[in-house]
Amino acid sequence: MLQKNTKILIIGLGLIGGSYAQGLKRAGYEVGAVTRSQKTIDYALAHGIIDSGTTQVTRGYVSRFDLLVFALYPHTFLEWIDTWQDCIKPGALLTDVTGVKGSVVYAVQARLRPDLQFIGAHPMAGREVGGVENADCDIFRGANYIVTPTEQNTPEAVETCRELGRTLGFARISTLSPAQHDEMIGFLSQLTHCIAVALMNCKESRHLVDFTGDSFRDLTRIARINDEMWNELFQLNKTELLAQMDLFRGEFDRLREAIAEGDETTVREMMRTSTRRRSYFDK
Amino acid sequence: MLQKNTKILIIGLGLIGGSYAQGLKRAGYEVGAVTRSQKTIDYALAHGIIDSGTTQVTRGYVSRFDLLVFALYPHTFLEWIDTWQDCIKPGALLTDVTGVKGSVVYAVQARLRPDLQFIGAHPMAGREVGGVENADCDIFRGANYIVTPTEQNTPEAVETCRELGRTLGFARISTLSPAQHDEMIGFLSQLTHCIAVALMNCKESRHLVDFTGDSFRDLTRIARINDEMWNELFQLNKTELLAQMDLFRGEFDRLREAIAEGDETTVREMMRTSTRRRSYFDK
Repeated sequence: MLQKNTKILIIGLGLIGGSYAQGLKRAGYEVGAVTRSQKTIDYALAHGIIDSGTTQVTRGYVSRFDLLVFALYPHTFLEWIDTWQDCIKPGALLTDVTGVKGSVVYAVQARLRPDLQFIGAHPMAGREVGGVENADCDIFRGANYIVTPTEQNTPEAVETCRELGRTLGFARISTLSPAQHDEMIGFLSQLTHCIAVALMNCKESRHLVDFTGDSFRDLTRIARINDEMWNELFQLNKTELLAQMDLFRGEFDRLREAIAEGDETTVREMMRTSTRRRSYFDK
Repeated sequence: MLQKNTKILIIGLGLIGGSYAQGLKRAGYEVGAVTRSQKTIDYALAHGIIDSGTTQVTRGYVSRFDLLVFALYPHTFLEWIDTWQDCIKPGALLTDVTGVKGSVVYAVQARLRPDLQFIGAHPMAGREVGGVENADCDIFRGANYIVTPTEQNTPEAVETCRELGRTLGFARISTLSPAQHDEMIGFLSQLTHCIAVALMNCKESRHLVDFTGDSFRDLTRIARINDEMWNELFQLNKTELLAQMDLFRGEFDRLREAIAEGDETTVREMMRTSTRRRSYFDK
């Protein structure tokens, strides 16, 4: 369980790592950071986001921490574990913020020292801008936090991970299997980003700005996308994402054919279905 | 040109007709209404939205008005013209609020008495709820108003129609040909509604509510849709809408294939394109 003197290390001080650090330090925890750039650490220290930080991984520094939060790109995360896990304090708990789970959680658990425990988590929050300068722990308020334990995780570790989410102010803490998580995220998040990206690729668009209402703006807000990160997340969830894309394409094609054939019964039935289902999501 | 004593008749007192009436009456004009239900008229009179109204079309009533705004479904609009245009005051100006133009504007102009003039307009505003009880002329603030004149329209009529938009408080008044309008609306509005409807048809969705972040909510807000009206608008703009749907499907498929084949260059290039283009739309 989290205790007053639990020391927390953030590995990767970007938007999410920085927001975790800020929220946890405000909650009273000692927060350290390992990240690539000294400028990032200087900024975070100057703005009271962390208590200490380093660009050099050393056993002397890393072994001080009881809880490690990995906020890295997935491939960097796995490399870090391979290279530096010997520096981690015996019995420490590891968690992460990665947006895909099946391809990460088991890979990390498989290579981890037996005295360490890794439990995956996904904070469903973000901004369209990155970097520690944009860190803001308020992005977690009202958002969802998903814990994805496996049979390798103890009930205590699950509870500590959930407590981390509560401490950060998430509105809803859920537990899903990695596979359930990836299906859900493939549909709700990755597919919607694919749609927005495809839509913006249709036309040069500059001439349309003057005629654009809220619907187009809403639909394409997420078309501003970190291509390095999202490309990696798409590849790591490829099977599930392609299945969700095909499901959408099937419904899109069904609507297209009904419009083309003047099959107004089907068109209107699909509209009534969408209207009914969308009402579940009204806040 | 609009003058202080210009009398304006709204035909069809729903959400948009009611919002026009409210805005024009507040601007000081005498506003009448013809609509199907006496309850609607009673409500609008009680709430100061109109000065007078009737469910019965008579020459005595209709011929008092100088400017007529048709806020009906397209097929009802054409029927009304065929049945009742003899009641309209000689020299009156007619306009509308219909969301498609090519299939409406020429049809109305072709059947209209030679002493009358019809000029199409499209107020790009709305709400997810309908009816005069939800009328609110503030929905026009910040929105776009598009006038779609043809060679049959005089410069004076175009100017009066633009003035109507300014009076209602629209932020931007544009002039497009009916064909330009329909291409633009097919892409920006109809295609986006098709995407939202198709997305909501993919899954029953109720179990997803707890995991839904802003992106899915934003993308599907417009999935709550008046099926009678939108089905009619889709059919009336079918050729253009199908072309826009195919354009989108082409880009969606290109992204899908790139993800499937691990062609990260194409995936990331499409993401960078979407990011760059979306920035045009930042307010």
